[in-house]
Amino acid sequence: MENITQILITLVLIFASAKLLGEIFERFKQSAVVGEILAGIILGPQVLNMIGTSEIFPVLAEIGVIILLFTVGLQTKVEEIMRVGKSSLVVAVLGVVFPFIFGYLYTLIINHTTVEAMFIGAAMVATSVGITARVFADLGIIETKAARVILGAAVLDDVIAMVVLAIVTGMGKGTLSLVKIGLISLEAVGFIIFLILIGRRIVYRVVPRVARFRTKDAVFSSAILFCLFLSAVASYIDLAAIIGAFLAGMILAELNPEFNLSVKTESLYNFLVPFFFVMLGTWVDLSIFNQPALLWAALIITLFAILGKLLGCGLGALHLGGKDALVVGFGMVPRGEVGMIIASIGLSMKAITSDLYTVIIFMVMATTLFTPPILRRIVLRKSEEKPPDGEKIEPE
Amino acid sequence: MENITQILITLVLIFASAKLLGEIFERFKQSAVVGEILAGIILGPQVLNMIGTSEIFPVLAEIGVIILLFTVGLQTKVEEIMRVGKSSLVVAVLGVVFPFIFGYLYTLIINHTTVEAMFIGAAMVATSVGITARVFADLGIIETKAARVILGAAVLDDVIAMVVLAIVTGMGKGTLSLVKIGLISLEAVGFIIFLILIGRRIVYRVVPRVARFRTKDAVFSSAILFCLFLSAVASYIDLAAIIGAFLAGMILAELNPEFNLSVKTESLYNFLVPFFFVMLGTWVDLSIFNQPALLWAALIITLFAILGKLLGCGLGALHLGGKDALVVGFGMVPRGEVGMIIASIGLSMKAITSDLYTVIIFMVMATTLFTPPILRRIVLRKSEEKPPDGEKIEPE
Repeated sequence: MENITQILITLVLIFASAKLLGEIFERFKQSAVVGEILAGIILGPQVLNMIGTSEIFPVLAEIGVIILLFTVGLQTKVEEIMRVGKSSLVVAVLGVVFPFIFGYLYTLIINHTTVEAMFIGAAMVATSVGITARVFADLGIIETKAARVILGAAVLDDVIAMVVLAIVTGMGKGTLSLVKIGLISLEAVGFIIFLILIGRRIVYRVVPRVARFRTKDAVFSSAILFCLFLSAVASYIDLAAIIGAFLAGMILAELNPEFNLSVKTESLYNFLVPFFFVMLGTWVDLSIFNQPALLWAALIITLFAILGKLLGCGLGALHLGGKDALVVGFGMVPRGEVGMIIASIGLSMKAITSDLYTVIIFMVMATTLFTPPILRRIVLRKSEEKPPDGEKIEPE
Repeated sequence: MENITQILITLVLIFASAKLLGEIFERFKQSAVVGEILAGIILGPQVLNMIGTSEIFPVLAEIGVIILLFTVGLQTKVEEIMRVGKSSLVVAVLGVVFPFIFGYLYTLIINHTTVEAMFIGAAMVATSVGITARVFADLGIIETKAARVILGAAVLDDVIAMVVLAIVTGMGKGTLSLVKIGLISLEAVGFIIFLILIGRRIVYRVVPRVARFRTKDAVFSSAILFCLFLSAVASYIDLAAIIGAFLAGMILAELNPEFNLSVKTESLYNFLVPFFFVMLGTWVDLSIFNQPALLWAALIITLFAILGKLLGCGLGALHLGGKDALVVGFGMVPRGEVGMIIASIGLSMKAITSDLYTVIIFMVMATTLFTPPILRRIVLRKSEEKPPDGEKIEPE
């Protein structure tokens, strides 16, 4: 019982501090997300060290971000993403090219090897859409065009990041195989196209049958099962799990009003999503602030990471108008797990130094922490001209 | 990513098989719970061995049973438990005395030591109210008088079980301290009385303030937090965590209609509760069926476990009328974690043999598996005379 007691206490600590700091930040008109991340920094190993090493909390965090992207998917009909498909593709590609080149060149300039420069470039590529999605959800603007362009671009840019990862790990091992690159790209693209073309039809046939099941809320349970299943498949084929969750939501989006799916998902969201943001906070490494040279490198990389997405994605979205381009540009700035994973792979195969690893972690955390307040400000300034669609994600 | 992929796949397997077998059992007019436990037996180490050793699933199971008892608590107003308080107390005490004496005497008769007999008696004492609560919830009769007597008795009998455990571990170690027994009893009783008298007033003052928070669904989040907090406290003072969860729900029961708490908890329930029953299934040890002598002992202990509660609790509830007494008697039959914990403590301090341990595990599983169909039958036969209150626990 000792163990479960400890876990329950930590659970209470995480949940309570996330909600409390979230509330305080909202009262100061800031993003609750930042409060939740701050809760993680405080509870994490750098300050109070109260989370422990149980694997349960990272897993709850992962289920949390899966539920977050599933909820976002539920607000995003396939047709609407299709309509912004070209914009998303341009935003995704430019948003990969610019940060990669910036990271690559800067790392070369400060006297690192080509392989190291490739890894740093790769780690700067993938947007972590969770943060932006949460900010948009809190502001009730998930159903705007800019949000759709970002969501579409984030899915695509994750696919590109996986291909880039395959290339750089190939280079790191000295065994770059074009066949492997081709395979991973095909797998990822095939998964998405299969789901949208065929998966959707199957779902639309199965759901009316499930609705007649005797199990209470059978459609909702099946929807969650479908979300977990696609997350597992995405993770299995080396895509981020959240891509599967987002696609699951998107496929079910048209059934959402009939079966109240996003309303029913709300309490899972309320309970699980804070774990994701708190765990992000616990991974913050504050020791970098004692090393001025490293801190400078990290600040410059962070600047390039921001500029790269801002220029690349902003340019790609310029036809939406200046302010929407700004929203898309900043919305694509946060980096997340994928960047950290690429950095940790580089570190584990000794392709990058631990200093460069710390720089990447700093960049990921900085882009994550600073995006919500900026995004919030731009969107709220924007909305003075045109009111937001209302609180679509949390209807009462 | 390998690790999270594996966990997601197992998550999908557990959830899918629980819902599928639950549905099949419901179609055959059986209890979905039994289907979920069967899913656990099939996925568990005895058959397919697909769950692995990750600590995440037992923890999800624990959170699941916490949410289950919280939901049950939300349907149970303090006044209503008070009204049946005397019945519950009599049911609890007789339901402890009879099984303890049966287990104690039988173990002595088959030539075991006094300490062993005390442990077996103790392991037969505590009702696991999760199973019965779930059956009642599925049938929509949580708000009947028999259900209330059972819930009240289960809380009390858990308290008594903790005291009995303190006594037998003291005997096992040869250091039985009356002070320790007194302390643990005081702690448990004090916790419950404090919550009902003072905790409730605090909650009723705090909730209207929380309702004005900016965080979305702040009251619901706080309710879940309160539930987890009391579970952690209960677990910390060596009560079962679910007692805390049940008390949290009970304290919030009067606020339930205003803030839609049980409706909002539903999707957490749908997602998490199956993990509890599947994990119960994975703990089933089928090897006992290859050992006839052990199997006989296990069957006789199981019979005594059933008879003990049926006689003790049935006698205690006789004033409710014959059929309600039968419902209470059978409703108190399932043993759960507490019985297994007492047995495992006995095993780890070498106070009982591993054969006796297996016997206890068999008894726990058998009482868990056979109660739902019997209870369902009695209740449904009963309801031909008087229709149930309707589906109070899962309003749409």
